[in-house]
Amino acid sequence: MRLVLPAGTTETALIDGISAAGAAPELMEHTPSADVEILEYGEPVASPVTPVSPNGCPTPAAVTRAVRDVVGFDVAVIDAGLTRSTAAPTVELGGGPGTDIREASAVPAATAAFDRAYDYGTSLPDDRLMIGETVPGGTTTALSVLTALGEPAGVSSSLPTNPVERKRRVVDEALAASDLEPGDCEDAPLEAIEAVGDPVQPTVAGIAAGALEAGTAVTLAGGTQMVAVAAVLRHAGIDAGLSIATTSFVADEQGDRLAEACERFDCELTVTDPGFDERDHVAMQRYCAGEAKEGVGMGGALSLVPDGEMAAVRDRLETICTRLGIESGPEDDPTTERTADGPAEGGRGP
Amino acid sequence: MRLVLPAGTTETALIDGISAAGAAPELMEHTPSADVEILEYGEPVASPVTPVSPNGCPTPAAVTRAVRDVVGFDVAVIDAGLTRSTAAPTVELGGGPGTDIREASAVPAATAAFDRAYDYGTSLPDDRLMIGETVPGGTTTALSVLTALGEPAGVSSSLPTNPVERKRRVVDEALAASDLEPGDCEDAPLEAIEAVGDPVQPTVAGIAAGALEAGTAVTLAGGTQMVAVAAVLRHAGIDAGLSIATTSFVADEQGDRLAEACERFDCELTVTDPGFDERDHVAMQRYCAGEAKEGVGMGGALSLVPDGEMAAVRDRLETICTRLGIESGPEDDPTTERTADGPAEGGRGP
Repeated sequence: MRLVLPAGTTETALIDGISAAGAAPELMEHTPSADVEILEYGEPVASPVTPVSPNGCPTPAAVTRAVRDVVGFDVAVIDAGLTRSTAAPTVELGGGPGTDIREASAVPAATAAFDRAYDYGTSLPDDRLMIGETVPGGTTTALSVLTALGEPAGVSSSLPTNPVERKRRVVDEALAASDLEPGDCEDAPLEAIEAVGDPVQPTVAGIAAGALEAGTAVTLAGGTQMVAVAAVLRHAGIDAGLSIATTSFVADEQGDRLAEACERFDCELTVTDPGFDERDHVAMQRYCAGEAKEGVGMGGALSLVPDGEMAAVRDRLETICTRLGIESGPEDDPTTERTADGPAEGGRGP
Repeated sequence: MRLVLPAGTTETALIDGISAAGAAPELMEHTPSADVEILEYGEPVASPVTPVSPNGCPTPAAVTRAVRDVVGFDVAVIDAGLTRSTAAPTVELGGGPGTDIREASAVPAATAAFDRAYDYGTSLPDDRLMIGETVPGGTTTALSVLTALGEPAGVSSSLPTNPVERKRRVVDEALAASDLEPGDCEDAPLEAIEAVGDPVQPTVAGIAAGALEAGTAVTLAGGTQMVAVAAVLRHAGIDAGLSIATTSFVADEQGDRLAEACERFDCELTVTDPGFDERDHVAMQRYCAGEAKEGVGMGGALSLVPDGEMAAVRDRLETICTRLGIESGPEDDPTTERTADGPAEGGRGP
């Protein structure tokens, strides 16, 4: 089993009101580079930013790393448009960062990115792949791609209160800027990504398509962003078996919508609850309050944890949080609750 | 424990008579890219070349991968001047390929490469690093750097019959082209690399120096090429504890010279015999006949194998050899013996 993790950026994450507005949004472009360092080394190495919200909620990379420490699995990080350099080893497939989806073209080289990713996916000898993502702004670009495909679209958020109306307005603007109506890209999913997507989407989709073609079992490790990739694959006529593995935090927020989407796109759904409610640790409390929820392959990684080992993952997460500078006790300052819906400094996107 | 593996190329490998001359030397520049794919995925993925000699001797990457499958350890491959792209994840430290050491400058950016590698080495959170290498031509550049430093120089070879006189003539030419006499770089080891080294050397030395500065235990995983790096570190005034871990194949060829060099540079020496003489498999027979000997961190990886587990490594190596297209039986064609000293197609350098 290998976790393949395309990492990239889109200027869409900088749009006011759906992202970490007000708390140094320019730091957010460091987040994927820091995430993959945490996944590889257990802490940021070259990154000047540690993706922890002001409330003490760490990036999901910390959870995925905790699982990796306990379970052990191979990782291949794909540079799918990183803006900032990273000290983590990455596979270069030649893509660049994405532009604001309100521009005419959001991912000009979407088809080329898909093709290179497809070749990579076919070449891997692994029996089974999980494919995750880290791209701030990714739930907004998921919403816009689903809309361009004409699919019913509900997307998650890394914030406890999902700014979904704001996202829908941005998506409306994005489609208009590309002269698209909802559903116009029904038969052309790569055109949907090119117009209103992000550069991680064609990379995830291409690796998945190539691996499926080679007979490799593929699990999309994530929430609503992976629903969008599944939609892209189905609209591309790929009907091989496909799974989605996500966290209970996404499933709780999405209610029946997630299962309905998985049924619609013929994806097996696995939801894993890491049992964070059993700990007083601030990081786990923040996840239970709805922050972060998913990302960096978190849900897929959690699905690998054998029965009886989840407590070890929580123990390990506490150790990693200490390294990331998060105090280990429960929240003892009630004022932090007031900013629970606030932006995350250098944190994950909308 | 992490194996850090700088991988690169130097045009020195293309010099007639010390390298894979006659058997498509242009394929040799693929070797490091293929090696790191084997280390990461267990077989070449994007590389058009599989580094196996005409005799059926696989690259040491196959052995290091076999150990990794049995023991499990983290890997970070560093792009220290690869000529060909690779599907393996790599850390980009910004170096380029090296030129022929008979040019005036072999590694123009040696100091910059050392500095970037030093920063990377200081930043790693691991308690212990092994640092390996894959660079065809690397024993010749080791000989030239040792000579420029004024150190007694005996170097190994990937061929059963070491073309050492040919190498010495090349080194004489290389020093002359840089206006150097033996020993002229005694107090300036990075100048020795810049003049007559290869781009992997400053990367290995920089990571080692940085890690040692940060209090990390460092083992140089390799043979005479790592003796040259140890010499560079000592000539740079770094006197922290340092280990070298290599294979019995290098130690057998070098006789007392290896232990003497390690004593001279105050390095603890670990030699591991993988017990390949216990198997009839052609790949292991070729190692016992003196082919390949070391590389891609092989000696260091072997030193990690616990008592009683080496048979599992040999089993695993047989599986990997099958994937690499090497037949599993003993050599059954006596004519292959005649080419035992011959060049390796796409194989490791001198």
